[in-house]
Amino acid sequence: MDYYGSQITKLIQQLSALPGIGGKSAQRLAFHIVNMPVEQVKHLAETILEAREHICYCRECCTLTDQEICPICSNPVRDKKTIMVVESSRDLAAYEKTGKYNGVYHVLQGAISPLLGIGPGDIRLKELMQRLQGDVEEVIIATNSSLEGETTAMYISKLIKPTGIRVSRIASGVPVGGDLEYIDEMTLLRALEGRVEL
Amino acid sequence: MDYYGSQITKLIQQLSALPGIGGKSAQRLAFHIVNMPVEQVKHLAETILEAREHICYCRECCTLTDQEICPICSNPVRDKKTIMVVESSRDLAAYEKTGKYNGVYHVLQGAISPLLGIGPGDIRLKELMQRLQGDVEEVIIATNSSLEGETTAMYISKLIKPTGIRVSRIASGVPVGGDLEYIDEMTLLRALEGRVEL
Repeated sequence: MDYYGSQITKLIQQLSALPGIGGKSAQRLAFHIVNMPVEQVKHLAETILEAREHICYCRECCTLTDQEICPICSNPVRDKKTIMVVESSRDLAAYEKTGKYNGVYHVLQGAISPLLGIGPGDIRLKELMQRLQGDVEEVIIATNSSLEGETTAMYISKLIKPTGIRVSRIASGVPVGGDLEYIDEMTLLRALEGRVEL
Repeated sequence: MDYYGSQITKLIQQLSALPGIGGKSAQRLAFHIVNMPVEQVKHLAETILEAREHICYCRECCTLTDQEICPICSNPVRDKKTIMVVESSRDLAAYEKTGKYNGVYHVLQGAISPLLGIGPGDIRLKELMQRLQGDVEEVIIATNSSLEGETTAMYISKLIKPTGIRVSRIASGVPVGGDLEYIDEMTLLRALEGRVEL
């Protein structure tokens, strides 16, 4: 399989080990990289190393960041009394892109999954409960709409209810622009149950 | 847009500048990388740098490699009398994967394209003609089946014909497993023209 020489082959192998990158893409990327100006390649390698070196969890919300407190938690404009609970930093990014949410987040770094042996102690729940001892008005649970996400949402809401803090769950239903014909039955039923009066 | 901290954001930006990697994939890759063991990340960065550093064109066939003579040209088992002309090292890899071709290659590193201002002098044609002064029996032209590929094939065949060396072109037609219904008219006509007696 080594028709390029060992170094390119090694690069292709390593790239294809990354998520979402198959053999063909890895090849394409490798050829792109070896054709890039040397300076740019050095810069890329450095960026990779630096990002890895400085990565840590935000001391407040547990998102992945390279600062002790992430840019959102350290932003004085954000409403610290509203906490949105998400499974991953990528879910946080998805809500940030809407540009409409002004509260802060709590990143669980996972979801409860009895099948995978992930229990409540394996995600950042203790940290969430600690934060709730401060001045918090509402916890919005925005875990995924999967079995694990729902289980986690139920578990958290039961945990928080006794504290008297308001707990809500993001709505589940037909996606905007979605064609009913192509939507699964579970979603259709959820949309029906969650109907709102006009 | 900086909700992760500057270093991760920088990494995402640089990854999304690579071909075939959009914003979402770049984010996914970046998070994967910062979660990888430090040693592995160092190894990845080194591999990238080393591959770029040692990249060169094979002195024989002009493919991208990290040796003076690529693994195929330096393989004594390969038939040096048969040269397959391809546009890129990736095309070479595609034929190598069939495992059935035992000749050598010549990589043009491009194709003639009047539209893009790429003339015969801009691809590795001079190098090919030099190789033909040695002991060569057949040149198989395997440029792409695109306008540029066909133009290049025509140009090369006209150049080689006077030398008396056999010149052939890979067949064009319906791909194996292809459903006629979904194949474009040009391909269907080509397949008809190129029909072989049974």
